[in-house]
Amino acid sequence: MERIGFIGLGAMGKPMARNLLKSGFSLTVHNRSRSAVDELAAEGAAPAQSSAEVAKASDIVITMLPDSPDVEAVVLAESGALEGARTGSIIIDMSTISPTVAQRIAEKARAVGVSFLDAPVSGGETGAIAATLSIMVGGDQKAFDRARPVFAALGKTITRIGPSGSGQIAKLCNQVICVLNILAVSEALTLGKKAGLDLDILLQAVSGGAASSWVLSTLGPKMINRDWAPGFKIDLQQKDLRLVEEFAESLNLPLPGATLVRQLFRAVQAEGRGSDGHQTLVRTIERLAALGE
Amino acid sequence: MERIGFIGLGAMGKPMARNLLKSGFSLTVHNRSRSAVDELAAEGAAPAQSSAEVAKASDIVITMLPDSPDVEAVVLAESGALEGARTGSIIIDMSTISPTVAQRIAEKARAVGVSFLDAPVSGGETGAIAATLSIMVGGDQKAFDRARPVFAALGKTITRIGPSGSGQIAKLCNQVICVLNILAVSEALTLGKKAGLDLDILLQAVSGGAASSWVLSTLGPKMINRDWAPGFKIDLQQKDLRLVEEFAESLNLPLPGATLVRQLFRAVQAEGRGSDGHQTLVRTIERLAALGE
Repeated sequence: MERIGFIGLGAMGKPMARNLLKSGFSLTVHNRSRSAVDELAAEGAAPAQSSAEVAKASDIVITMLPDSPDVEAVVLAESGALEGARTGSIIIDMSTISPTVAQRIAEKARAVGVSFLDAPVSGGETGAIAATLSIMVGGDQKAFDRARPVFAALGKTITRIGPSGSGQIAKLCNQVICVLNILAVSEALTLGKKAGLDLDILLQAVSGGAASSWVLSTLGPKMINRDWAPGFKIDLQQKDLRLVEEFAESLNLPLPGATLVRQLFRAVQAEGRGSDGHQTLVRTIERLAALGE
Repeated sequence: MERIGFIGLGAMGKPMARNLLKSGFSLTVHNRSRSAVDELAAEGAAPAQSSAEVAKASDIVITMLPDSPDVEAVVLAESGALEGARTGSIIIDMSTISPTVAQRIAEKARAVGVSFLDAPVSGGETGAIAATLSIMVGGDQKAFDRARPVFAALGKTITRIGPSGSGQIAKLCNQVICVLNILAVSEALTLGKKAGLDLDILLQAVSGGAASSWVLSTLGPKMINRDWAPGFKIDLQQKDLRLVEEFAESLNLPLPGATLVRQLFRAVQAEGRGSDGHQTLVRTIERLAALGE
């Protein structure tokens, strides 16, 4: 059984690392703040002092970090994972980062005989805890096949999209759909509200047909019940939309809808509510219509 | 059993009238062009020369017409349905028209002792043929209860939304969600295409989670397979978005997303492709990225 390393024990990384332990993998962990390391160590993981030390003790190293610069630092910097990684090992970045950065890291890894997979996930904290994440993977077929049992301990839908970077690109496509579906439900519910409809009845009436979506059935009721608790925070969604925008710009690709949502999410941030769940967009549409709280 | 009248035997109206015959209702029909009337008459319907004549022979009259002025003319004009309607009868308009016009017609009907229900549908020609339409109804609870067996012969999800006009408002909310979900999938697939992804794999990878929707699973494959045949035509969707815009304006309600899609659909119409299905929006996004055919 492959020995696994895990770097980045945040809201997503900690439950994922825990699921690897539960599946019987031997696990070495590292994290910027110490408390999460201690917690996992108490559950059977070996603590490490640096990313390089994690890599030295592992056949497969997983990183789960906030953004592109974090992954670059943890993998490429001095005492980073690549410094400690043995020839033939695999580094899997499961963060959502720039596809171009993922491709660049993959090249540097390849140059020293290490495989790199970009494998961002969808499904949020709930999916991380329940091991039901969707995992979109870019990189070598061979490394993907070897990493499959590891992915199977973390998620449900595991898809190799194509070469390095393509997992990140698929994740960005996923986010484009998700945020525009949120705008769709936000505008429809605000239209119904301003016109005086019973929104529960409206939701039920439109749920069966061409308007149906995960966002409608999962976030629609939260919008109606004024539940702003984050499944996924606006601030994180904005980070992903920045990645979408940067990548689309590099392709000379205009995305008018995704750009519009990014601007509207900014209005949420301007209110100081970036820690709300992304369903809070409905409040922004309501405020445009002077329906605001 | 109530005697039914049906006015407007177009792509939607003809299969709906046929389903009423199949359910055993006695049916009187009228249509601007004669051929559809003859067709239904051959299947057992009684032909009528005017809307008033249909109403005289019926307890419940259904109209299924392109737009608000058509319904106003057929119901309110000389020799119209209201002229022929008996006290205690019901007129049901199943077209998608302006909520304000629906409310106005309801008032005029009420003044002469006739009930009026607005009952627009979702589900398109396929749903009309299969009797699986979603029907969103505004108007009196009593009239709705009496009309229920008629709706049951035409559709599957039948919801009374509220008072007169609210069926039309719910339909407009439905369309807002539907068109923004189409923009969502169009932008995501174009991003994936320009970045060189295998779109079938992408679609499969994002279908299981937060991006899932009826539009993704039903129209996504058509976009990938370049199938522009209409389930629902751009020209009709634009008519509905005009109704959304007029109604939202009357409420002082800005709908930035729905407005954006309306502008982009206009680009489809500018190409002379207004008869394509609404999934053809993906071509417009592709053309913005110089990926066009």
